Amino acid sequence: MNDLKVKEKLQSFFLEDIGDRDLSTNGFQEEKTTVTVVAKQAGTMAGIDLLRIGYQLLDDRIEVIYYKKDGDDLGEGDLIARITGPIAPILSGERVLLNLIQRMSGIATATNAAIRKLNDPSIQITDTRKTTPGLRIFEKYSVRCGGGVNHRYGLYDAIMIKDNHVDASGGSIHDAMQRAKAVAGPLVKIEVEVRNEQEGIEAVSAEADVIMFDNVDPTMIRSWREWVPKTIITEASGGIHSDSLPHYQGCGVNYISLGYLTHSAKALDISMIHSKEEKLHVFS
Amino acid sequence: MNDLKVKEKLQSFFLEDIGDRDLSTNGFQEEKTTVTVVAKQAGTMAGIDLLRIGYQLLDDRIEVIYYKKDGDDLGEGDLIARITGPIAPILSGERVLLNLIQRMSGIATATNAAIRKLNDPSIQITDTRKTTPGLRIFEKYSVRCGGGVNHRYGLYDAIMIKDNHVDASGGSIHDAMQRAKAVAGPLVKIEVEVRNEQEGIEAVSAEADVIMFDNVDPTMIRSWREWVPKTIITEASGGIHSDSLPHYQGCGVNYISLGYLTHSAKALDISMIHSKEEKLHVFS
Amino acid sequence: MNDLKVKEKLQSFFLEDIGDRDLSTNGFQEEKTTVTVVAKQAGTMAGIDLLRIGYQLLDDRIEVIYYKKDGDDLGEGDLIARITGPIAPILSGERVLLNLIQRMSGIATATNAAIRKLNDPSIQITDTRKTTPGLRIFEKYSVRCGGGVNHRYGLYDAIMIKDNHVDASGGSIHDAMQRAKAVAGPLVKIEVEVRNEQEGIEAVSAEADVIMFDNVDPTMIRSWREWVPKTIITEASGGIHSDSLPHYQGCGVNYISLGYLTHSAKALDISMIHSKEEKLHVFS
Amino acid sequence: MNDLKVKEKLQSFFLEDIGDRDLSTNGFQEEKTTVTVVAKQAGTMAGIDLLRIGYQLLDDRIEVIYYKKDGDDLGEGDLIARITGPIAPILSGERVLLNLIQRMSGIATATNAAIRKLNDPSIQITDTRKTTPGLRIFEKYSVRCGGGVNHRYGLYDAIMIKDNHVDASGGSIHDAMQRAKAVAGPLVKIEVEVRNEQEGIEAVSAEADVIMFDNVDPTMIRSWREWVPKTIITEASGGIHSDSLPHYQGCGVNYISLGYLTHSAKALDISMIHSKEEKLHVFS
Amino acid sequence: MNDLKVKEKLQSFFLEDIGDRDLSTNGFQEEKTTVTVVAKQAGTMAGIDLLRIGYQLLDDRIEVIYYKKDGDDLGEGDLIARITGPIAPILSGERVLLNLIQRMSGIATATNAAIRKLNDPSIQITDTRKTTPGLRIFEKYSVRCGGGVNHRYGLYDAIMIKDNHVDASGGSIHDAMQRAKAVAGPLVKIEVEVRNEQEGIEAVSAEADVIMFDNVDPTMIRSWREWVPKTIITEASGGIHSDSLPHYQGCGVNYISLGYLTHSAKALDISMIHSKEEKLHVFS
Amino acid sequence: MNDLKVKEKLQSFFLEDIGDRDLSTNGFQEEKTTVTVVAKQAGTMAGIDLLRIGYQLLDDRIEVIYYKKDGDDLGEGDLIARITGPIAPILSGERVLLNLIQRMSGIATATNAAIRKLNDPSIQITDTRKTTPGLRIFEKYSVRCGGGVNHRYGLYDAIMIKDNHVDASGGSIHDAMQRAKAVAGPLVKIEVEVRNEQEGIEAVSAEADVIMFDNVDPTMIRSWREWVPKTIITEASGGIHSDSLPHYQGCGVNYISLGYLTHSAKALDISMIHSKEEKLHVFS
Repeated sequence: MNDLKVKEKLQSFFLEDIGDRDLSTNGFQEEKTTVTVVAKQAGTMAGIDLLRIGYQLLDDRIEVIYYKKDGDDLGEGDLIARITGPIAPILSGERVLLNLIQRMSGIATATNAAIRKLNDPSIQITDTRKTTPGLRIFEKYSVRCGGGVNHRYGLYDAIMIKDNHVDASGGSIHDAMQRAKAVAGPLVKIEVEVRNEQEGIEAVSAEADVIMFDNVDPTMIRSWREWVPKTIITEASGGIHSDSLPHYQGCGVNYISLGYLTHSAKALDISMIHSKEEKLHVFS
Repeated sequence: MNDLKVKEKLQSFFLEDIGDRDLSTNGFQEEKTTVTVVAKQAGTMAGIDLLRIGYQLLDDRIEVIYYKKDGDDLGEGDLIARITGPIAPILSGERVLLNLIQRMSGIATATNAAIRKLNDPSIQITDTRKTTPGLRIFEKYSVRCGGGVNHRYGLYDAIMIKDNHVDASGGSIHDAMQRAKAVAGPLVKIEVEVRNEQEGIEAVSAEADVIMFDNVDPTMIRSWREWVPKTIITEASGGIHSDSLPHYQGCGVNYISLGYLTHSAKALDISMIHSKEEKLHVFS
Repeated sequence: MNDLKVKEKLQSFFLEDIGDRDLSTNGFQEEKTTVTVVAKQAGTMAGIDLLRIGYQLLDDRIEVIYYKKDGDDLGEGDLIARITGPIAPILSGERVLLNLIQRMSGIATATNAAIRKLNDPSIQITDTRKTTPGLRIFEKYSVRCGGGVNHRYGLYDAIMIKDNHVDASGGSIHDAMQRAKAVAGPLVKIEVEVRNEQEGIEAVSAEADVIMFDNVDPTMIRSWREWVPKTIITEASGGIHSDSLPHYQGCGVNYISLGYLTHSAKALDISMIHSKEEKLHVFS
Repeated sequence: MNDLKVKEKLQSFFLEDIGDRDLSTNGFQEEKTTVTVVAKQAGTMAGIDLLRIGYQLLDDRIEVIYYKKDGDDLGEGDLIARITGPIAPILSGERVLLNLIQRMSGIATATNAAIRKLNDPSIQITDTRKTTPGLRIFEKYSVRCGGGVNHRYGLYDAIMIKDNHVDASGGSIHDAMQRAKAVAGPLVKIEVEVRNEQEGIEAVSAEADVIMFDNVDPTMIRSWREWVPKTIITEASGGIHSDSLPHYQGCGVNYISLGYLTHSAKALDISMIHSKEEKLHVFS
Repeated sequence: MNDLKVKEKLQSFFLEDIGDRDLSTNGFQEEKTTVTVVAKQAGTMAGIDLLRIGYQLLDDRIEVIYYKKDGDDLGEGDLIARITGPIAPILSGERVLLNLIQRMSGIATATNAAIRKLNDPSIQITDTRKTTPGLRIFEKYSVRCGGGVNHRYGLYDAIMIKDNHVDASGGSIHDAMQRAKAVAGPLVKIEVEVRNEQEGIEAVSAEADVIMFDNVDPTMIRSWREWVPKTIITEASGGIHSDSLPHYQGCGVNYISLGYLTHSAKALDISMIHSKEEKLHVFS
Repeated sequence: MNDLKVKEKLQSFFLEDIGDRDLSTNGFQEEKTTVTVVAKQAGTMAGIDLLRIGYQLLDDRIEVIYYKKDGDDLGEGDLIARITGPIAPILSGERVLLNLIQRMSGIATATNAAIRKLNDPSIQITDTRKTTPGLRIFEKYSVRCGGGVNHRYGLYDAIMIKDNHVDASGGSIHDAMQRAKAVAGPLVKIEVEVRNEQEGIEAVSAEADVIMFDNVDPTMIRSWREWVPKTIITEASGGIHSDSLPHYQGCGVNYISLGYLTHSAKALDISMIHSKEEKLHVFS
């Protein structure tokens, strides 16, 4: 992740939550404390460095030591980090940072689970544009932490020809590809979404870089894969859930994209534990 | 919602997704289309006005007619809105706007379901600060659309005394309340989180405005409610899920706060349908 | 104050004054100087930490030592701070920082004077929303430095029912309170502005959290206070000036709000003294 | 004023006051009202157009008709503007807009009063950099509305050589002028601050564009003016108050700069009157 | 181009040039004028719509009629647009808008000239990242207006393996490709920069999507092209100037990238002509 | 330059180029490298400090040592700076920083060349407002590095009366000067553009501070200079190129302004050299 952007976003999130001041920590400026960040649930770590970047923004006297790194497995009860510093900013930043790394680790965990469920190393798991508005940089990164790779980041870095684009181009995939190729320079890939054999054949003859089988049955995909040249990348997409993933094993596509990784992943339960015995030392 | 802030946020979300240009709609500038927004699932509407505000930002030739309003029940297949205008900006904005109103309607739906599940009109459902960073204005509003009310918005508009604040104040709720009252003017409420009877009694004697029973069993809450004066508002919180809500019926608190409404609500399935017969008219 | 916001605001104020460059300090980059910040007038200190935060933004070689802290009494001639560093950025930042801390200390001084003038510890002095646009965070904080407490921060953190809201609700305070209660969650207070006995009685029966006597004579307030239950907070407001404050002594309200603290407080005279003998050392 | 900047600032001021929503106007969306803006005090109008620009930002259904223009005399009770539109945004924007135009009209009024007090058309009244941080564009403009002219806007558009600059340049005005001239292109003026005859003579021989007599007695100024060539502009400055202005009549300077116009001008009392009979029509 | 971003940038450019106010047009608010935008030099149009977007930002009473569209040939003296509206904002915006469309049309013109000079329709002209900081969206678009296509937009939308990346990966192109493929999802292309035959062969065997011949002689390129499979896109780059372009005719690559299009294109001479007879009508 | 503004701009330029992440440097986080910045061409240095400011923004472990300073002559092959730190951020920032300092040094070099070409120390070289939108602070500064001085910075810091302003004022220079003087305070200069003797005489009698001879032949200028009083500054402008500069030697004006310095200066060739032997040390 580009740290310049991460800092800008963390700053705006802190402003959203803290506003003009944290009313509840007023008067704690000088007490020092130590807090441990602990996984309450097994999963995959993502976003650990937000702790240091975030707390440094709030108060540069706060120190963070990491015991994990992004992509690591987390067991229930695992120590993730230890935070030491003045208690007021530590409490003020707690909710925002937990909200983020819980969500990020939840996405990494879901990605990792999908890979294990699919259990086919020839197929990579990828994400979609169904991310939370404003959080794409964090969520796409979390998919990578979980072992997945990223699909296009936005409308600006790759071309996806869906049925609406085909219709608006006059109804044929060839015409839509013509329009797309006229725009794409040497470094932009063109992906075509197909829903039946005829569209697939048309996409092959139109020389798509990537063909996405949209809501196509895994058995069908397996048979179609045969007439798609190996130089064309294939992707299965559309309504694939954790439970249906095993059916795609061996279906021959290069990628499976899963919208639920970002739009429905459950936040991983991560807590900050304020250990009593380490509190109340006066800040020097 | 403050529309000035809504516009600023929509602008930043569109920039995140579209970047310098939407590669896939290049060359569609003049075709006109009509799109219908349809609920694919039953639920509660929230955020409908983002369609008009958002599309007006992208292109002021786009017109949006609403068939529902926020807070309305949605049945599967219900028509929500009809969007007419040039096809390129309609396609470019589709993903961002759906991402938002699906999430918002999902929160409204979960809130409404919680109210029906609890089935006790003397208790109001409220939210927490466990919102998505950057989306608090949308998520808090969605809870209201679903029939809930909002807990504090951030660290700036109310005081919440948790165990950490008590510890940092020297260990007694009275001391923590003293610190808090010194800061709170006439319009800031002070809520105290209590986990056992002793803390509760201390909070009452310290004259908290609101007492939150944190992870306390509903039966216990019912018995405690008796010695809490009626002028003090009470709230149950902590790990309450959809399934455990009915146990809180009649427990006597004024509010139940639910973190899952915002951190785990499932997005409501809402689609944009591009109706073929209405497409391809040239824009005048 | 939330330092993240303070830094953002100081940055924008420096950009306003310095623009692309300070023409008058061109070529002074290497000279080092020491400047003392001195009170030219007795009063109450507010905003001292802007000196360090502000000068650190301009040049991290500048060091600031404080001899006072916010809320301290200032005597004429008192040394407030000592600033050492390269002369160019010290001169470039001087005007902006003085403009701010003079204004802030002026507000603290006026607040403190009001408390002494009123001379009734049972009544707290509070502010209004009549702050300078863009400076609310600084001005509300300054009132606290002077010994006052803050009224609501904006339209977002408390409800104030004025005559216009009553009229727009159909003319009765009860109807307006119904609207308000439907919006207010557990942590939002509702204040009702009343101008005569009938309105006051209505506000009591409608269970307002706070009742504000707007432009009501202190004698009248004293008699009204008797039928207002002790659980309802009371406030006097409207055209109260420094000279009329003593009349409110013992009138029985909990708060008196004073618009003049922020919209008309005289800036406190604070200067930066460039001591000749300490100048002109070359920066190492 | 540059309207692009005015809009940006108004937007940020509204966000400061309204935050995520105006709790008190919730549910008033459809009622329409008419409000009149009235001077409660005699003075000089400044900033009237903020009413239209500001309200248009909040809701483009709000219409504003002006009965005055900037620079006009206001009598007590004079009608300034009439505002018609939905009541909620009119109430939400009222405080911010009044805070601004009261302050601006206060500055214009003070400027105008100074001109009349001085009563010497050969001397123009000008301002200083002692403006409110963030409001310089509004306050400098208000001085023009009152009949004054603007001194430099910031550190970027003119050079002012004060004693500190002289000291940092080695102690002589000539050396400081050398440094300054090396930076100033054809369109930057150089002003030198002088406190005694010797400095004045040095500034003349160094060919300053403008000489400022800093805290110099009017009689002294009159005698000094004689040996200053007519091509050099002169300015009196430093601790000049409303009461001492008449002493400067006929003293021969071209400009008198007054810090109090911006740092201490009293806000002019301007109100929004909600006329009962015009309220409560339903918005069509 | 994404108009939301274009507007944001134009706003910031106007603020840079106009600041708090345009001193020279003060007092012209009511005069109306008509201005024609005319090509003083032959070339290719780019950025015409900035006239309307830009002037609408400054004053929505300004109307712009176009006589050309982007990509059109411009002859010396050709009428490009006609602008009608109040004279003050038209003058205030003139310099910024001309600066931009002159630069943009200069880039389009240079691109178009390069295509004609090369005179080989099997090779497309493309740009580089050597754009003006802050203007990439405008300059990349201008290349398209001139008939070229865009190379990658930034570091985020494609992978380019240069010698430094190879070195940092341990010295082999294969290792660098391994690193790259681990990051690239289905929609990111990988380009490898090669300077000699050995590197080229390694890049082919490592299955680069695009191979860039960096500073390689056209004759050499022609011979190398033979052993590069047709599925791999090829690009010539590095120090190619207008004069050397014809040597690349028929060399077999798919793309030639030219840094000079953006870092050294001469601005096209475009003027705004203020026609006397159309001036001085009073604005109604 | 105001470093606060420089940092803001560098931040936005890095975001433009890097976006959410630099795909090509993924996985290089720990390798350390040393890079030298070298002039590939003789010229004048400008903007060297952007290296340190820029790289510190990206990663505060990067250290930069300078071997030149702004304004220094650069010989072909001269070492400018040495950069040491982690390789990933060094590579990510390279293009943006080179784009800027090449352009800035190009402008400084062109300015310096113009001064030598003119070879008349009584005439200073100055710039225009024909700068790149968004880069004015950098380009105006570069002109100073090359030995020139700055003309006005924008529309806000000086008045320039051109033919359009004269026409809009009713056609006479006197009327236009009247309007201008009414706006200009003591510190704003007024320049009048004249194209013939009659206009020149009118400008003198109207007491312009600066007279610009627009597109006037050097011989003519020399004769006109005689009847312009020495207290009025003169400037030659309009279509003056490097080749025609010598003709202006001794023509008697104080300034010559050159648009080409900023709108057409060739970027100076400056490179970052990645020295193999210093690479690949692991970062400690």
